[in-house]
Amino acid sequence: MEQNYKLTISYDGSRYFGWEHQKSTENTIQGKLETVLARMLLADREESKTEAHNTDSVNKTAQTEALPAVSVTGAGRTDAGVHAKAMIASVRLDTPRSEAEIQDYMNRYLPEDISVDGLRRAAERFHARYSAVGKTYCYSCYAGNAKPVFERKYLTLLEQMPDVSRMREAAALLTGTHDFRSFCGNPRMKKSTVRTVDSIEIRVSGPYLRMYFHGNGFLQHMVRILSGTLLEVGFGKRSPEEMSAILAARDRTAAGYTAPAQGLCLIRVDY
Amino acid sequence: MEQNYKLTISYDGSRYFGWEHQKSTENTIQGKLETVLARMLLADREESKTEAHNTDSVNKTAQTEALPAVSVTGAGRTDAGVHAKAMIASVRLDTPRSEAEIQDYMNRYLPEDISVDGLRRAAERFHARYSAVGKTYCYSCYAGNAKPVFERKYLTLLEQMPDVSRMREAAALLTGTHDFRSFCGNPRMKKSTVRTVDSIEIRVSGPYLRMYFHGNGFLQHMVRILSGTLLEVGFGKRSPEEMSAILAARDRTAAGYTAPAQGLCLIRVDY
Repeated sequence: MEQNYKLTISYDGSRYFGWEHQKSTENTIQGKLETVLARMLLADREESKTEAHNTDSVNKTAQTEALPAVSVTGAGRTDAGVHAKAMIASVRLDTPRSEAEIQDYMNRYLPEDISVDGLRRAAERFHARYSAVGKTYCYSCYAGNAKPVFERKYLTLLEQMPDVSRMREAAALLTGTHDFRSFCGNPRMKKSTVRTVDSIEIRVSGPYLRMYFHGNGFLQHMVRILSGTLLEVGFGKRSPEEMSAILAARDRTAAGYTAPAQGLCLIRVDY
Repeated sequence: MEQNYKLTISYDGSRYFGWEHQKSTENTIQGKLETVLARMLLADREESKTEAHNTDSVNKTAQTEALPAVSVTGAGRTDAGVHAKAMIASVRLDTPRSEAEIQDYMNRYLPEDISVDGLRRAAERFHARYSAVGKTYCYSCYAGNAKPVFERKYLTLLEQMPDVSRMREAAALLTGTHDFRSFCGNPRMKKSTVRTVDSIEIRVSGPYLRMYFHGNGFLQHMVRILSGTLLEVGFGKRSPEEMSAILAARDRTAAGYTAPAQGLCLIRVDY
């Protein structure tokens, strides 16, 4: 019988074309998860057939049988190159395996840059995307003299430390419920671009600058455009006061640049 | 006039054939450092020629001139795939640039996985290898249920956590001044294989197991063979008491396996 599962997943997004499965390439997080789960379900079926018939032709059948369809839903769709420390996903599976067995199978066959950190049965109505009520993203930068060789794929390098008090002033103006169309990377977005950003926290620790965004949902590229715009404020290219005009413009060209994907990480999803 | 410099270098060794320059490949840490410094010295020379002659033919000359010879000496020679958080190197350079300017030039032109974290003038007699009196290596393992996706290149994965108290017993027997021939990866080693290991500290923090080795010097592969042998003790394949017999054997085959390079990192050199 089909059962609904909730998964907590971490991944280094460096070599993927983002979360969402694409027709042109299998190299997506969603694609990797679905392929591994489909193979597991196929192995389950072959196992039960072997028990029923105990014939020698089973392996031959296994090789020709199509992979079962599996659909993994993520809480959000991270862009190419964006990382996640705790992406939440849901999936319906009909398998005799225990939660721990499914998790072990997935971690054994998934590539080393994708990990299932938790897996448990969920209520029938649980849906990773529709049930989510909030998300936290962290955008990480480094402004030191040396180079952060061990974390280089998870940081955006800055020539110098920006003026954080200016950035905090601008962040305060961006916090709240606004039409964030100016911060949306999709110019053909038909649906509402109104979102609530509960908080933007900017922390400095030594050469590290980290921006934490918490909100009920984010538009395509929204966190990266907010980050790029705040960095422009920090480097004196824009004034904090400009933020209100940028929001009012409802035009992507009014906001700052899209900060690079590698500095972004989804760190929490609330339900 | 030539001046002696001391450099503090960090690197992710994953894609290098180790520290030491090799004839067959340029892909070594030493090779990368020497090439960048040679280009800097060449640029210095062209600069001074331009000032002297102020001719237009300078750039043409620059392209045909051979790179000046530069010899960078490291405190130790890390194996292929081994990392360093604070390798110390010395080099003699004749350049008008300041310490900060040399460091900036190197960090700009070195690949993103090699960083010069410090550079300053050193006494004439300072030699990164001969002046070193001690070194600390850390061997890092991970034994959690999930996979450490962001640190995966700096850890050795273990199926489960070994018995650390057994490992500490064995480590105590390996500490001190001994003939470490059984722990030497070079079977044709002609020189003395006597070394002093001052301390082997084994720390567990959550799913992480870290072994810290401090000593006056280490033979080829010695830290990795010590780590592999201690892990075998932790997994019950050897008894802690065996350590004395392994040392007495003076034979590589008496000791355990060579633990993978990726878990090893040079973290400190004492002078």
